[in-house]
Amino acid sequence: MEKQEWGFKENHELHAAASFTIRNILEAIMGNIDETATGKPMIHLGHGDPSVYPCFQPSPVLEEALVQSIQSTKFNGYPAGVGIIPARRAIAEYLTRDLPYELTADDVFLTAGANHAIEVVLTFLSRPGANILFPRPNYPIYEARARFSPLEVRHFDLLPEKGWEVDLDGVKALADENTVAIVLINPGNPCGNVFTIDHMRKIAELARELRILVIADEVYAYQVFGQKPFIPMGVFGDIAPVVTLGSLSKRWIIPGWRFGWIAITDPNGILRKTGLAETIKSTLVIAADPPTVIQGAIPYIMKNTPDSFFLNINKILKGASDMFYERLKEIPFVACPHKPEGSMFAMVKLKLEAFADVADDTDFCMKLAKEESMILFPGYAVGMKNWVRVSFAAEPNVLQDAIVRLKAFCLRHAKQE
Amino acid sequence: MEKQEWGFKENHELHAAASFTIRNILEAIMGNIDETATGKPMIHLGHGDPSVYPCFQPSPVLEEALVQSIQSTKFNGYPAGVGIIPARRAIAEYLTRDLPYELTADDVFLTAGANHAIEVVLTFLSRPGANILFPRPNYPIYEARARFSPLEVRHFDLLPEKGWEVDLDGVKALADENTVAIVLINPGNPCGNVFTIDHMRKIAELARELRILVIADEVYAYQVFGQKPFIPMGVFGDIAPVVTLGSLSKRWIIPGWRFGWIAITDPNGILRKTGLAETIKSTLVIAADPPTVIQGAIPYIMKNTPDSFFLNINKILKGASDMFYERLKEIPFVACPHKPEGSMFAMVKLKLEAFADVADDTDFCMKLAKEESMILFPGYAVGMKNWVRVSFAAEPNVLQDAIVRLKAFCLRHAKQE
Repeated sequence: MEKQEWGFKENHELHAAASFTIRNILEAIMGNIDETATGKPMIHLGHGDPSVYPCFQPSPVLEEALVQSIQSTKFNGYPAGVGIIPARRAIAEYLTRDLPYELTADDVFLTAGANHAIEVVLTFLSRPGANILFPRPNYPIYEARARFSPLEVRHFDLLPEKGWEVDLDGVKALADENTVAIVLINPGNPCGNVFTIDHMRKIAELARELRILVIADEVYAYQVFGQKPFIPMGVFGDIAPVVTLGSLSKRWIIPGWRFGWIAITDPNGILRKTGLAETIKSTLVIAADPPTVIQGAIPYIMKNTPDSFFLNINKILKGASDMFYERLKEIPFVACPHKPEGSMFAMVKLKLEAFADVADDTDFCMKLAKEESMILFPGYAVGMKNWVRVSFAAEPNVLQDAIVRLKAFCLRHAKQE
Repeated sequence: MEKQEWGFKENHELHAAASFTIRNILEAIMGNIDETATGKPMIHLGHGDPSVYPCFQPSPVLEEALVQSIQSTKFNGYPAGVGIIPARRAIAEYLTRDLPYELTADDVFLTAGANHAIEVVLTFLSRPGANILFPRPNYPIYEARARFSPLEVRHFDLLPEKGWEVDLDGVKALADENTVAIVLINPGNPCGNVFTIDHMRKIAELARELRILVIADEVYAYQVFGQKPFIPMGVFGDIAPVVTLGSLSKRWIIPGWRFGWIAITDPNGILRKTGLAETIKSTLVIAADPPTVIQGAIPYIMKNTPDSFFLNINKILKGASDMFYERLKEIPFVACPHKPEGSMFAMVKLKLEAFADVADDTDFCMKLAKEESMILFPGYAVGMKNWVRVSFAAEPNVLQDAIVRLKAFCLRHAKQE
């Protein structure tokens, strides 16, 4: 045989999936930054990674844990397919603190970060003809990874006028006999909301009625600073089975460690009976692993990170969120309908009709980057066109400066009356 | 709507894929081990992970590198989608040493171990109707991951009577206009062979003729101890484009760090022109990452690991392989057709007709585990039924003991004449 062209090809489907990711969207916006031209150092409020700021430095326990893990010489070898037992047990104990049931190591599976946990979930739920319910707005990697799965995606709304609660009637209308699961992110990304216990119970009851799995993305667990406490969805695992996704990334401020987990809260044993628990294991056996040397550090981290570290981070986030929410009121043509109560984000609506020359949220973010060396995340990428997602997890003086820049930008682009 | 059954289901396709993995196969065999019953401590020659043995301890440079990475506080944040530049540059410089062209950071993409690199490769090559050429025998994760891809898998033979060289005529007969790539593992896993430079040039020329990509799995790069030097396939990147897979796991004896890479050697720019280079990037943007804290340790590791460390490991492997190969001749009913020259493995053929009560390679491995507390890897799982893959990367006294146990087992199960 003779052929002229090489057998491999560019894959536009993969480009399309990648274009949904926060990374690629931020890269495009960062391409517009020119600190020399603006004379302003970049302010990055586009992602949930405050690890560059001095006030968000991780606890020294992290370094101690990693050093003792490597010095033990016990964690250089391949890990077990779903993670080493001591690390899984430590996560189980951590999660059990606020649950009415006891989780064991058998209920916990380790992943290479929560993004990887999302990939794993969308793999083990895959089934031709099935569908899954995602929130709108949503964390973008769900949308990107869903393109690798035969699952049909259906979106229910989070309602800004109700503090970003789930539109339960909408969920009911969307679901059918082929619906496998509903995804919830609480504390909310991108909305910064926190669900009440009553609302969560209603969601669990609806999931039982619809016979669907609850995927509880709790990457921002315990990062709350409003009136509502954080309640793990697993509390309602006796109503409907819950698969919880978690991570060290946000609460410990080490997103670069890429350590996450998938936990099952299912006191009625439904996931075991249906074989889904074994399916999760099979998926993980074939999937990437978090390094054993990091798994080996987990028991020490879980045991020794002081509560004062978490309290201090939440205090900083509360101060930042309060200041951001109040001062945003000074800025014309933008509005935050719901004061953030958790995570690191607020959704801010752009009053586009008031701008002279801003076409949409992308145009807003691109021009803001170019003129003010400041990065926000365009709402279209979380499913809310003409909104922006703002991370307020920054040093106070940086956030103050961000407000000043945002105000100047909005005034400069206002329609002349 | 009302439905009686839960919407999620067990996925037997995922179980089938997982059943192809070394992990699951070894787990089944390990279930047969009872050290108390046999009075013998387990000897594990079933995988390429000698990190438990004192003589294979990693260099102290590894600990230093990880500690300086975490202490710098620069590597707590999210990594870039294809890896941080300093780590990519360090790998590029490492690979360039034995190439006639200079690789740059742009040619290197970081993965969460080489298994993950295989997953990434089989994702970015995916195309309905296309096919890929795998060696037989093969490293099993290729077969497992290929089940997630629409790629049709076709197997060419490695020829034991020719020192496990590629059956080039077989490759030519298999390939057609829909063939995208050929996978080569050199030094060989599971065969322990090393390709000659002439053979590699012929493969590259055949790849050019067939217009297919060369995937060069060089996870065991430089781990050679026979007459043949290790030659990176990238040397022939000017004949056909080469995508090289590598890892710290084997040469640095830290498989648990899960750090790997994909490097492009393509001086004619074919992968850029066809868009495959961008497709690789898009795949990685959506995929799991190696932790930033480990990426941050790479430049130090690459700069400071002394050659004496690698020389010593190769010396140990040579001693082990020599001893194993010679002493295997004492054992009836097994044969190693080609003395290992690289990696950590030998393929050993079972003369089944000489055994009284051994049905096949699986039965051999299961009984050996039960009776001798010793683990070998069954050949069916690498595509060679009634062979076994033996890792000789063990302490010398352990390997001596393994030979004794293997001999006792074979004699005990011999047919009575």
